[in-house]
Amino acid sequence: MLQVRALSGIPEVTPGADLVEMIADAAADTLEDGDIVVVTSKIVSKAEGRIVRADDRDDAITAETVRVVATRTSETGHVTRIVQNRLGIVSAAAGVDASNTPEGTVLLLPEDPDASARALAAGLRARLGVRVGVIVSDTLGRAWRDGQIDHAIGAAGVHVFEDLRGGTDAEGRPLIVTMPCVADELAAAADLVKGKASRLPVAVVRGRADLVGDLDLPGARSIVRSLDRDMFRLGTDEAYAEGFAAGGAAANPSSSAQRERSVT
Amino acid sequence: MLQVRALSGIPEVTPGADLVEMIADAAADTLEDGDIVVVTSKIVSKAEGRIVRADDRDDAITAETVRVVATRTSETGHVTRIVQNRLGIVSAAAGVDASNTPEGTVLLLPEDPDASARALAAGLRARLGVRVGVIVSDTLGRAWRDGQIDHAIGAAGVHVFEDLRGGTDAEGRPLIVTMPCVADELAAAADLVKGKASRLPVAVVRGRADLVGDLDLPGARSIVRSLDRDMFRLGTDEAYAEGFAAGGAAANPSSSAQRERSVT
Repeated sequence: MLQVRALSGIPEVTPGADLVEMIADAAADTLEDGDIVVVTSKIVSKAEGRIVRADDRDDAITAETVRVVATRTSETGHVTRIVQNRLGIVSAAAGVDASNTPEGTVLLLPEDPDASARALAAGLRARLGVRVGVIVSDTLGRAWRDGQIDHAIGAAGVHVFEDLRGGTDAEGRPLIVTMPCVADELAAAADLVKGKASRLPVAVVRGRADLVGDLDLPGARSIVRSLDRDMFRLGTDEAYAEGFAAGGAAANPSSSAQRERSVT
Repeated sequence: MLQVRALSGIPEVTPGADLVEMIADAAADTLEDGDIVVVTSKIVSKAEGRIVRADDRDDAITAETVRVVATRTSETGHVTRIVQNRLGIVSAAAGVDASNTPEGTVLLLPEDPDASARALAAGLRARLGVRVGVIVSDTLGRAWRDGQIDHAIGAAGVHVFEDLRGGTDAEGRPLIVTMPCVADELAAAADLVKGKASRLPVAVVRGRADLVGDLDLPGARSIVRSLDRDMFRLGTDEAYAEGFAAGGAAANPSSSAQRERSVT
C-alpha cells in the first residue's frame, strides 16, 4: 500500500526561505522513517533566489541552454525550443518557468537540484530525527506523447532506479533490460495530489521505505542518458538538415568550397 | 490523499481468462465509486491469447511495427529497435515481451488496449455496481532518460489528461501549455506497488475520483502525439542519413540519377 498526501500549510516561498523549517512545520510530527518527500522545483528555485526579470526570459533560456535539441515554430508563430540544459535535462525552454511566479519575473531551475535535495534531506533528518528521502520534481514534456508528467530532477537519500537487472522474473529468467526509474514514478505519483493551479508544492509518499537510503546515493543526474547512448540527441528536422548539408558538400566538394568562399 | 494498493490473489492468467471476474474476486467488496483500476498489459495480452512462439520473436516485432524510428547496435552486438507500433506507441521491440511469459513464448501487446480497458471498466461497473475507471499499463523507455516507467496504453472511464489549458495559475495568469497526462501518472504510481518480479498485475488507485467519468471518454490512443507535431519522429542518426542522401542527390543530380539507373 502506497499513500501519497500533499502537505498543506506551506507558506508563499520567497528568496532565502528556510524550506527545511517550512516543510518540517507543515508536516508537524507526521513524517516517519522511510517517507519520501517530493518537493516541486519551483519552491526550491524561489528559496534559492533563482528569479530573473521576465523581459530577460529569452536571454535566460539561452544562458541555461547547453545544446539546442530541436526548434519548431507553430502556425501561430509560437517558437518551441527543446534544449538540453546545464543539468543534462532535455526540456522545453530549459525549464525557465513563467507560471506561478511573481508578476514580471520568471524562474530558473535550481542551480544543482541534487544538492538542493541533499540539503533538504539532511536538514529534515537532523531536525526531525526521521530517515526520509527527498525528490525535487519538475514538469516535463516527453517525446512521442502529448502532455507532461512530473519527473525527478533532484534526489537524495532515495534510490532513483530499482535495479532489477540482476534479478529474475517469476519464471526464473533474468530480467535483463528492466530498470524502473522509481524516482520518476514517485514524482509522477506526487503530482497527482499536488495539482498545478493550487499551492501544494510538497507531497509525502509513504510505503516504499525500501527505496530510502544513504544521502550519498546517486542523485537524479544519474537518470540523464549520456549523449553517446542517446538516439534522440537531435530533433529529426535538425539532424536531416545537418545530413543534407554534409551530403551536399561530400557530393560536390568544389561547389561547396566555392559557396563557403562566397559566403566569406 | 491518494492510496495505491496492489490486489493480491490474481491467479495465473491464461488465454480466455475472464479478467473482470478475476479482478472482481481479488478486489472482493473493496472497490468504490471513483477508484481507478490499473491493469498490467501483460495479463490483458495473456487473457486475449496474444502469445506467439519465441522463435518467431523477430517476425512478431516486424509484424507489430508500423515504422522504424531508430536502430542501434550495442558493442556486444545487441540490436535495439525503437519502433512505432500499430497503436502509435513508440517503444523498444514494439512491446513484444519475453519476460514473465511461458517458456518458449513471447507476448504481443493487446490488439486494442483502449477497447480492453473499456470492456474491463464496463464489466466491473456492471458486476460490482461501482463507477471505476480502468487503465491498461505498459513499461516503456523514454528519450533522454535512462530506465523505464509505466505508462497508460489503454484507458476507459477515466480522463487521460487533466486539462488546465483554460485555467489560471495562482497569480491569475493563464496556464497555457500545461496539460498533465494524469493517465501516465496513474500508471507510474501503480507500478510502485505492483513490482516487476512479483505477480501483482493489478493496482487500485483511490483519491482521484474527479478523474473518473463516462466510458466514452477519449482513450490512451489520444496521448500519442501525431507525426506532424512529433519533433522526434526519426532517430538522429536515421534522420542525418536520410538528409545526407538527399543532400548528395540535390548537389549532384546527374550522378544520383546515374546511380539510380545502375541500381536498376
